[in-house]
This record gives sequence, structure tokens and C-alpha cells, in this order.
Amino acid sequence: MQITVLAGGVGGARFVRGLLSHLATREAPEPTTVTVIGNTGDDITLVGLRVCPDLDTLLYTLGGGVDEDQGWGRAGESTRVADELGTLGVGPDWFTLGDLDLATHLARSRWLAQGLTLSEVTDRLAQRWGLPERGVRLLPATDTPIETHVVVDDDAGGERAIHFQEWWVRHGASLPARRFSVAGLGGATAAPHVLDAVRGADLVLLPPSNPVVSIGIILGVPGIREAVRGTRAPVVGVSPLLGGRPVRGHADACLAPLGVEVSAAGVAGIYADFLDGWLVDDADADARYPAGVRVRSLDLLMRDGAGAARLAGAALDLGQELAGTPVPAGRDRR
Amino acid sequence: MQITVLAGGVGGARFVRGLLSHLATREAPEPTTVTVIGNTGDDITLVGLRVCPDLDTLLYTLGGGVDEDQGWGRAGESTRVADELGTLGVGPDWFTLGDLDLATHLARSRWLAQGLTLSEVTDRLAQRWGLPERGVRLLPATDTPIETHVVVDDDAGGERAIHFQEWWVRHGASLPARRFSVAGLGGATAAPHVLDAVRGADLVLLPPSNPVVSIGIILGVPGIREAVRGTRAPVVGVSPLLGGRPVRGHADACLAPLGVEVSAAGVAGIYADFLDGWLVDDADADARYPAGVRVRSLDLLMRDGAGAARLAGAALDLGQELAGTPVPAGRDRR
Repeated sequence: MQITVLAGGVGGARFVRGLLSHLATREAPEPTTVTVIGNTGDDITLVGLRVCPDLDTLLYTLGGGVDEDQGWGRAGESTRVADELGTLGVGPDWFTLGDLDLATHLARSRWLAQGLTLSEVTDRLAQRWGLPERGVRLLPATDTPIETHVVVDDDAGGERAIHFQEWWVRHGASLPARRFSVAGLGGATAAPHVLDAVRGADLVLLPPSNPVVSIGIILGVPGIREAVRGTRAPVVGVSPLLGGRPVRGHADACLAPLGVEVSAAGVAGIYADFLDGWLVDDADADARYPAGVRVRSLDLLMRDGAGAARLAGAALDLGQELAGTPVPAGRDRR
Repeated sequence: MQITVLAGGVGGARFVRGLLSHLATREAPEPTTVTVIGNTGDDITLVGLRVCPDLDTLLYTLGGGVDEDQGWGRAGESTRVADELGTLGVGPDWFTLGDLDLATHLARSRWLAQGLTLSEVTDRLAQRWGLPERGVRLLPATDTPIETHVVVDDDAGGERAIHFQEWWVRHGASLPARRFSVAGLGGATAAPHVLDAVRGADLVLLPPSNPVVSIGIILGVPGIREAVRGTRAPVVGVSPLLGGRPVRGHADACLAPLGVEVSAAGVAGIYADFLDGWLVDDADADARYPAGVRVRSLDLLMRDGAGAARLAGAALDLGQELAGTPVPAGRDRR
């Protein structure tokens, strides 16, 4: 069985880990490969080093090296280098560059400079973290460098664009976003195997990642949204909003500039052209969802690993239920 | 008073620190500026970062941050990043890239990438280490990237060139050197202020640094040897060999391929075209030195900071003695 997941950072990584955990505990498990397509719109160059926050969170989480409390970065991390860089007045003071994390960025930057693609670099890092042995293949959505920028008000009544990380990390998404723009996205190409992983999947899953700046960016890479629309596999998503609020992150601040209702139904609406199944919290069971989307409600909170596995299991169950259902005419709801 | 020092790494740095210490304890000290011209032939690019071992040793030693036991690197150093890089199979296993040290390399590489010269980068690092407050100006011999290579035997009876650091650090200078070649040296230009610092000095000092791969490289930058020959200041050197052996490092392995006698007299010979005063160990007092060089013998070992200060004081005394002497005709002993 081929499961393909479009994932952002922390929420996506925890969901995929739950999925692996669920698959491992199934009786008589059928051989399953999980392909994770990771968001690269958050990528940023700091101190000359290429940083891929979402890919790294996926690597560390799935590889067993993540800082469990914060959900990103390395367990047992230190900031010896960053502290010294601060003394030298180099590097941003709002972005944590841990020592162990820095080694990832150094290796990635070195390999990119040697001419490897981001896919090839990610593959090397995935080897280091034992992802193949865990049945996971991690693909960046694109090897083309892209960067999400946030257009915010400037002091003179106009607007200015800042890097997504600056908006998200430095300002905690508190500056009202006028819009998002993704440098390089229009000319980007889906990374090798990405389109096939979507088209050839038995199930496509959307974890409770940010629908705008994580999954939205992946879907924005030319060809990917079309592949998700065109796949014959059921597409099952998990709402990132519970009772109109994100569990973590700032999905609300990202939906607002799009004019999308900040709710499970609002997010389903922006996925409506391809969504088959939608898991929402019990609190959102009675909302009105797009026609043709099968909605299931449950306790959506991933409190721990077991909660993530339970959620992934529910997504899998809904996918299998949908797979037994003839795809309705007009499934491509553009 | 202007004192200009041509320095390599550990030995040069300890000598300059001794000089500063000696100057500070003089009664009624006259205002003295010490300009240190550092060797850059050891520079190497590792994991995409520009490393300048001799300049860093000078910065850390003069700035009070050096690991006193090993004489290079930072006190209280750790290798979190390097260990992780090792896990990723990146970076040499024979060169220590400490975490604090790595911050220096990251900052330097970032600044160089921004278009700063090595002089400007070194100046920023010197500020961080408080060198101006200590009356020290640190100049790289050249801003042109140069790299010392060592030509050694290959397995097929021919020869191959390896980076100096690989020969020195990885092989402990144990591979017989056929010769040294310095990539970029012929087209290099002395860094700003270097030639003036030599020409305008009241005293030029050569610490007990390696005469071939440290001071020899500095002198090899077009114009510098000529400036040392032409300066009206006395040029006083300290032998790096005591009883025919280096105190540390591998000066013997560096002199051999030049066909130079491994002795205090042999080293004086390769400096003979500009050397005015030469400090040797008591064990070497009776050797035959080049004509026109005033030789003083003493206990040359810098056992500690006080020893280095004593040695620097002796060099200063010899310089002042020579300054009172008319420069002999034929001083330029080319």
C-alpha cells in the first residue's frame, strides 16, 4: 500500500509519526510505504547556510531526534556556536540555530554547493535518520529554491514583504498579513517522484498542517495540486482547526488574509476541489461542509504519540471506507 | 614606538603576548604600537568555511581566549557540531573544528561572501577580541587567498601535492616533503598597511615561528621581503631551533627540503639578507653565524608567559642596541 502525505512541520511530523506507529501495531500489516512530501516554502538562508525548517522537523521527528517539548529542533540541543556568533554580531537573534541543527545546515549547504539537489541532500539526511528502515521516503515538494514572503504594513502606510520565518518566528505572526507571496513558486518544478507519489498513491493524506503556508505552498508548486485532483486515491484531510482555533501555530492569522472562514469548514472549502474525506473535531461536527466531502468527527487533539496514532488510524479508516466507494462523478470539483 | 612582528601561529602568538606583557611592565613606558603581520598560507576551506589557523591563534592568544594547553583553539572548547558532522560523513576527521572556533569561521565566511577583504574581516575579529585596546593591530600578510601545498611522494614513484594542513595536522609532517609550493603567492599583493608597517617601523621582530611555512610565506608575498630588506629599523629574530631542534612544530621537516642546515645558524642563513640581530639559545652560542648579524645567546625556551616576556625583552634590548649602531655599509646583503 502506498500512502502519500503532504506535510508541514511539527503537526505534519507528529501525524506521520502517529501513522507509522499505527501501521506498526496493525495485526497482519500489509506492506506499506509512506511517502512524505515536505514543504520548502519556509526555507531560509541564515549566516550563509540553507535552513529547511519543515524538512528538518520531519527528519528529526521521524528519526527519533526531535526535541519533544518544543516539537522542532534537536533533543539535547545547545547553542554554543550561536552564542559566539551573537558576540560577533552575526546571525539573527530571533532564530535559534542550535549546534546539532547547525551541523545539518552545514552539511546541507556543503552538499548543495557541491551540486546536489535538495532531493539528493534530503535523501542523505534521511539515511542518517534511518527513515528508509522505517518505511518512510521523504521528498521535498520541489528542488527549486522557493521562499514564502509575507506582505505586511510598513510605517509609511504602504507595504513591505518580509521572509515568512521573520513573520512567524520573530513576530509570532502578530503583524497582520496583507497577503503571502512565494518567490520562485511560479517557475518551480515538482521534485522527482513527487507527482508519481501522488498519482500512484492508494491514499493521500493531509495532516493537520497549516493549510496556507505549509500544505498550501506544496499544492502551489506547479503540477502538484493537479496531481492531487487527478489521483484515483481517496484524499483524506485532518482539520488543523478545532472549534475555530489552531492547536498550535497561527493558521488563523494565515487564513484571514485569504478571506477564508477560520474554521474546519473554511479549510475544507479551500481543499474542496480534491478533498474526499475530512476529519474534524467533535466540536465541529455540525458545521456545513462542501458537498461531496465525507466528514467524520472525533476528538482531534494529538495529546501524545498514542493520540497521533489514533488520529492517523481514523484517517486510514476513512480512506479505506472511501476506497470502497465509487468515486462520484464530478470528483474533480474545480 | 612602532614595532612590527611577522608571526606564524602558536610560537608567534606567545611571543607577541610576551612582548605586550614586557611592554606593560616597563617603567615609564613610551607609547608603543605593535603591528602583527600574520601568515595566511595555512588557510584552508573546510565544510565550505574559510579557516585561518594562524590568524585565529593570534586572535585567541592575544585576546585571552586561547586554550593554553594546546596553544591554539578556544579555551573551554567543545565539538558538538563536528561530532554531528562526523555522523553525516561531512568534514575531515583530522582537523578539529570546535564549536566556538566554528563561529569564527562562519562569521569570517559570511563576511567574505559579503565582499569584505580578509583584512576587514580580521579587523572585525580583532575588535571582538579587544586587540586595539591592547595596542595591537593584526594584519594578514595578504588579502589574496593563498594556500601552502606540500609536494610529497605518491605511491607510484611520482609526486603529489597536498594541502599544508593535511601534511602538518593529519600526517604530523611525517611524510618527507620534496618541496613547498604556495598557490596564489606569485600574484598576491601585500595587504593594506603591511608594507608601511615594515618600512615605517622602529623595530622589526621575527618571533621563533617556522622560518619556512610561516615567516617564509609572509616574506614570499611580493614586496614584503623587499620591505624588510629596505627598512631602516633593526630587524631582530629569535631562533625557532634550540640545539638543532624545534621547541614545537616541525621546522626541521620544513628546512630539510630546502637543503638548509637544521640549526639556529641555518635559519639565520635564510634570513641573512635582512637580519641585524639574532637571539639564539645558549646551546647554540658558539655556532658560526652570517657576517653582520649581531648574535646574543640566552635561555631561549618560552616555558610560560614570563619566559615569553623575558625573551621579547631581550629582543627589544638587542633592537635598541642595534638602533644605536650605524647601519653597516652593505646592510642589504642580497
